[in-house]
Amino acid sequence: MKRKVRMGMVGGGRGAFIGAVHRMAAALDGQIELVCGAFSGDPAKSKASGEDLMLPPERVYASYAEMIEKEKQLPEDVRMDFISIVTPNHVHFGPAKMALENGFHVVCDKPLAFNMEEALELEALVKETGLLFALTHNYTGYPMVKQARDMIRDGKLGKVRKVVVEYPQGWLATKVEDTDSKQASWRTDPTKSGVAGCMGDIGTHAENLAEFITGLKIKELCADLTAFVDGRLLDDDGNVLIHFEHGAKGILFASQISVGEENNLRIRVYGEKGGLEWAQQEPNTLWLKWPDRPIEMMRTGVGALSASAQAHTRIPAGHPEGYLEAFANIYRNFAYCLQARISGEAVDPVYQDFPTASDGVRGMLFINRVVESSKAGAVWTEF
Amino acid sequence: MKRKVRMGMVGGGRGAFIGAVHRMAAALDGQIELVCGAFSGDPAKSKASGEDLMLPPERVYASYAEMIEKEKQLPEDVRMDFISIVTPNHVHFGPAKMALENGFHVVCDKPLAFNMEEALELEALVKETGLLFALTHNYTGYPMVKQARDMIRDGKLGKVRKVVVEYPQGWLATKVEDTDSKQASWRTDPTKSGVAGCMGDIGTHAENLAEFITGLKIKELCADLTAFVDGRLLDDDGNVLIHFEHGAKGILFASQISVGEENNLRIRVYGEKGGLEWAQQEPNTLWLKWPDRPIEMMRTGVGALSASAQAHTRIPAGHPEGYLEAFANIYRNFAYCLQARISGEAVDPVYQDFPTASDGVRGMLFINRVVESSKAGAVWTEF
Amino acid sequence: MKRKVRMGMVGGGRGAFIGAVHRMAAALDGQIELVCGAFSGDPAKSKASGEDLMLPPERVYASYAEMIEKEKQLPEDVRMDFISIVTPNHVHFGPAKMALENGFHVVCDKPLAFNMEEALELEALVKETGLLFALTHNYTGYPMVKQARDMIRDGKLGKVRKVVVEYPQGWLATKVEDTDSKQASWRTDPTKSGVAGCMGDIGTHAENLAEFITGLKIKELCADLTAFVDGRLLDDDGNVLIHFEHGAKGILFASQISVGEENNLRIRVYGEKGGLEWAQQEPNTLWLKWPDRPIEMMRTGVGALSASAQAHTRIPAGHPEGYLEAFANIYRNFAYCLQARISGEAVDPVYQDFPTASDGVRGMLFINRVVESSKAGAVWTEF
Amino acid sequence: MKRKVRMGMVGGGRGAFIGAVHRMAAALDGQIELVCGAFSGDPAKSKASGEDLMLPPERVYASYAEMIEKEKQLPEDVRMDFISIVTPNHVHFGPAKMALENGFHVVCDKPLAFNMEEALELEALVKETGLLFALTHNYTGYPMVKQARDMIRDGKLGKVRKVVVEYPQGWLATKVEDTDSKQASWRTDPTKSGVAGCMGDIGTHAENLAEFITGLKIKELCADLTAFVDGRLLDDDGNVLIHFEHGAKGILFASQISVGEENNLRIRVYGEKGGLEWAQQEPNTLWLKWPDRPIEMMRTGVGALSASAQAHTRIPAGHPEGYLEAFANIYRNFAYCLQARISGEAVDPVYQDFPTASDGVRGMLFINRVVESSKAGAVWTEF
Repeated sequence: MKRKVRMGMVGGGRGAFIGAVHRMAAALDGQIELVCGAFSGDPAKSKASGEDLMLPPERVYASYAEMIEKEKQLPEDVRMDFISIVTPNHVHFGPAKMALENGFHVVCDKPLAFNMEEALELEALVKETGLLFALTHNYTGYPMVKQARDMIRDGKLGKVRKVVVEYPQGWLATKVEDTDSKQASWRTDPTKSGVAGCMGDIGTHAENLAEFITGLKIKELCADLTAFVDGRLLDDDGNVLIHFEHGAKGILFASQISVGEENNLRIRVYGEKGGLEWAQQEPNTLWLKWPDRPIEMMRTGVGALSASAQAHTRIPAGHPEGYLEAFANIYRNFAYCLQARISGEAVDPVYQDFPTASDGVRGMLFINRVVESSKAGAVWTEF
Repeated sequence: MKRKVRMGMVGGGRGAFIGAVHRMAAALDGQIELVCGAFSGDPAKSKASGEDLMLPPERVYASYAEMIEKEKQLPEDVRMDFISIVTPNHVHFGPAKMALENGFHVVCDKPLAFNMEEALELEALVKETGLLFALTHNYTGYPMVKQARDMIRDGKLGKVRKVVVEYPQGWLATKVEDTDSKQASWRTDPTKSGVAGCMGDIGTHAENLAEFITGLKIKELCADLTAFVDGRLLDDDGNVLIHFEHGAKGILFASQISVGEENNLRIRVYGEKGGLEWAQQEPNTLWLKWPDRPIEMMRTGVGALSASAQAHTRIPAGHPEGYLEAFANIYRNFAYCLQARISGEAVDPVYQDFPTASDGVRGMLFINRVVESSKAGAVWTEF
Repeated sequence: MKRKVRMGMVGGGRGAFIGAVHRMAAALDGQIELVCGAFSGDPAKSKASGEDLMLPPERVYASYAEMIEKEKQLPEDVRMDFISIVTPNHVHFGPAKMALENGFHVVCDKPLAFNMEEALELEALVKETGLLFALTHNYTGYPMVKQARDMIRDGKLGKVRKVVVEYPQGWLATKVEDTDSKQASWRTDPTKSGVAGCMGDIGTHAENLAEFITGLKIKELCADLTAFVDGRLLDDDGNVLIHFEHGAKGILFASQISVGEENNLRIRVYGEKGGLEWAQQEPNTLWLKWPDRPIEMMRTGVGALSASAQAHTRIPAGHPEGYLEAFANIYRNFAYCLQARISGEAVDPVYQDFPTASDGVRGMLFINRVVESSKAGAVWTEF
Repeated sequence: MKRKVRMGMVGGGRGAFIGAVHRMAAALDGQIELVCGAFSGDPAKSKASGEDLMLPPERVYASYAEMIEKEKQLPEDVRMDFISIVTPNHVHFGPAKMALENGFHVVCDKPLAFNMEEALELEALVKETGLLFALTHNYTGYPMVKQARDMIRDGKLGKVRKVVVEYPQGWLATKVEDTDSKQASWRTDPTKSGVAGCMGDIGTHAENLAEFITGLKIKELCADLTAFVDGRLLDDDGNVLIHFEHGAKGILFASQISVGEENNLRIRVYGEKGGLEWAQQEPNTLWLKWPDRPIEMMRTGVGALSASAQAHTRIPAGHPEGYLEAFANIYRNFAYCLQARISGEAVDPVYQDFPTASDGVRGMLFINRVVESSKAGAVWTEF
């Protein structure tokens, strides 16, 4: 019989944004139970966070290392099954490696790691251990993103010619890192974020989305990154020309100085026979564009959607599902795969669908390549 | 110390739509634990549903009566704190009454009851027992609905003159109840739904939303209800003229034969100084309209929103929250109030905000009045 | 050989809004030449307006009576062919009657006349003289309105069940008539506008649009009109329940106190097989709604539109045509019919499409019926 | 006293698209009279087109040369004042040069000429003769484009950082030039269009719009042009990275293979203090974006718009003005300036606003630079 899988969390203490998101996403579908956590590098803060979450004090740890060690010693029907890593980029590698080496599965926030070396080591370790590893490139969890991917895979748009993917935000238009914003502070700090700022934070989502939907890999790119805000050390804006495999061309831009933009991830793909458009801020709509006939407004829950789009939708048409539901789709799929592994049962392939460490490696590659290209004067750089 | 509150569910077995919604809404914020259920009138189906939900078999019951009796005998730190009623309308009263009489708090799907007598009895019982009772008029859980209410309450729009509230759907445009749709079947059946079809199902949401946002009570109405589909016994469409108190006038229409409409609840309010518009299918946007200056697009998470709008938002701007989050706001507020009652602590008034049995009585009144008015030839009827 | 037809204008002097609209609409397609005018009841103002328009002074007249008399005496190849009446409502009947009696064709702004008696007399006179008479219910000139009408006529939506037509504006939300607004002044004055304010000005457009698109006549209605602004003598807002022939039901509302609304005429029609939606502020789009498949966004110039939609479109898709082009479609069709009459040639039926005096009579009937219904306490009134 | 100015047209015979647009734009405001034309290189077709336009046969010419010569010999109060050139690109220079040399003012469709040499010669000739020369970069004629320019000029957005301008169309997604499309045929033919296809046709509009609105000149660019359709000789798609003066950066893309796109010119500009967005397909709306407060939807006719935005709007808010009205703004301004020159009166500076030969030279430069950059492998090229 199926049982809930047990999660331990690394990071996500009081005041953190993404940790709470992971917890809600994990809770939504009733497949996952939060059983323990090392919520902060500061033991007192970790403890307080555990209390907020109504966890038993003995399963709130002072560090991820302690958590992994102690949980490992608990009886099999009590101890956590996997860890969820929701720390800043420079604290992904440590807990992920240790978890994998100790037999725990992993869910990790993106980007995969602080640099390419770490990323490759993690990818290898996942392969070696055979453990499950999900990277929360959450935007691919939306049903209409699945639908877009499936339509292109099925040739509905014909051969893809052009891709425009964009991700403007405005929250870093001023020097927010000099205020008390924890988010802004670490995201603009090269010792915590890595070589890229905006491109690492959101450019990778755009890259991941474009490759996911089109099924095409980036071959080379030409990137023009800028730090518009005086004194900022990492890029806060970037424009990139892209050549995909099979002759498709594209534009990717990401920005955190686009004043007044919230979280405006948007993609347009044009093939020989049709086009599509999807925007994250209205995620339940997929626009289909055809030669000389009406544009179609495809909506979650309406009409003959792909098996995957349907499997990743919870409620009927017109009841909007949002960011947390898409995020939860990654957790739920991960949970289903983990439950199947535990019970020895099969899992429907439609649920074997979440981003992996290999997607994370591509993300790190993207970060490195755009930074290299830009530093060299926005020249073409092989991917 | 705070603890999770424990929920027992009545209804919501395999295949049910709204039961799953309630469970996700209850789970999202980590304040509520589903501990038991009587998921179906069919004991075998209840059992199977309990297994799906990974509940211990001994807490999956054959009937709500059995559940209430048996749970009552469990130790205080184990037994459920409240029941959640997610059955068709004619099975609201029974479990609600029995739960209240046995000291359990209640969350109940709308409409409150099958008829006015039941509704009034429940309202009285809630008052008498002092127990918590939440009615899931979930659309008032959206942050931008709170914002709209707060702006009108604060006089930002001036005295309200006109209200247009509409709720078109299309799913009953053909005789779906003759197919195997469980939803369509009971919703069009007067022995299960009561005297109204469309008006009871969604018209009451529109009525509740209009009164919630404007703070104005309906005084009288003139309703023109129709069953467009041949052989249907209850209204599937209705147009209503409304007089509110203090001279405001309005239109309310609800329809389930508006082909191609999903769940298009929308409200517009015009006061002497400004207007506003909100649509459920894009719930994170509130449009503000002013005399001879630009329309403002107010968005969840952006700018100086009311305390309540902020308290009912979980994630930053541009990360869309949807139907389940709004629904969860009702459950979370209910849980916070229940936790406060258990712990003896105070709860911030911003969370003491969920629809009650009294809102349910108004909903029943609305149903009765529109049916009366329409039967009399669409004449004005006092509310 | 075809020649331009010659227009004389009544009203539309300096500062008038609708006169300038008529002149631009008449000029756009190069079929009509403005040759003379009586632009104001004030001879000096008429003269000045004629100068602005670069007309020869001898053809700028002090009154419509003088214009009709003098023009009649000019040689046939010089004198005007028709008059265009762009005065307030109470000055429609006089010039229209005199023009018809003197052999001049007429284009007249709506509503047709000040009251029903005048309207019926004009309708009879048009019939009797056989002259051309166009009433500028301009919104039916839009290509996508033609498309909507044609699709319903062709049964694409099935039998029509429900119509929602609305026309909110906000410009009379305060007592503008006490400022120097010429528009506001006469439109709120019963001696100039007639028995209705908002309903006469824009309610009639909504009524005309609904009957035009659906092909259904209103049978009875129940109207709730209000003058929200203190001291205003005519309605500035109205909500109307409607019964159309063949069992269709509807709602019509029009308002001039809906703060922040510009000119938001919008119609939705639902049939047994499909629905449609059109909004005047984005007139090049027609939304088509179907059971359980994507909404279609039909656009001017894209795909297989009806012959009429195509004939009333001038430029390729994506080059927005607006209010003046729709207005010009009425003038152009009128000009084509007039040229055909002059030349004795046939005119393609697709262009024999403009509102007539009979549409004007229905408009007057609508005005009378809504006022009667409302005065009697919003009771059902036969049309 | 003011008089209408007289226009002779070169090109625009039967079946041509842009010629009809120019005629409607010239006619709309009643300031310009079409008095003669050389509508086609084919004398019979020119004659037939003249008949369609109801011109006297003696003023319909077999060639532009004949027209210029003969018109010059007519009395001053009869002959044309200016020519309007609406031919394909390779026939701009000839008539423009000859007109200027013979004392006629010129309106010319864009791009200015077939190549840079011609462009520079025309620019010099305009300067030398002092005659009026308008280039119909019509998109700058929209009121909300004026508003955008004025707000940036007045510092409302702060220093401009980022510009995204795009112009996707889909009509050349297949080899339309092999069908009987006259448009497609010459636009994809290097002997008629010049060195660029898509970039010359619509890329220049995007470039012109970006420089017009921001007031910033392009300094260097990196262009990646493609001919996606097999056998096509000129680019049908292009992606361009841009560096503007004063540190602003941008992206420009134009495409004619973006299936399902109509004429989707759109621009976004982000400054240090605010952002704006405008889309040609809904031209009456200008979106204003601010840090952490509601987006504003600025609309033609609503609120305190700039003097120029108001001067280029004809009708009240909510009455959509479109492409022809924007085009007509160029003709009307040209006419006002010409009338002023004739009468010796001054013209309000707000109307001295239309694109000139110098704008045309920048457009040619843009065409040359994107082609050079792309041919060299998408490398940075100084402007």
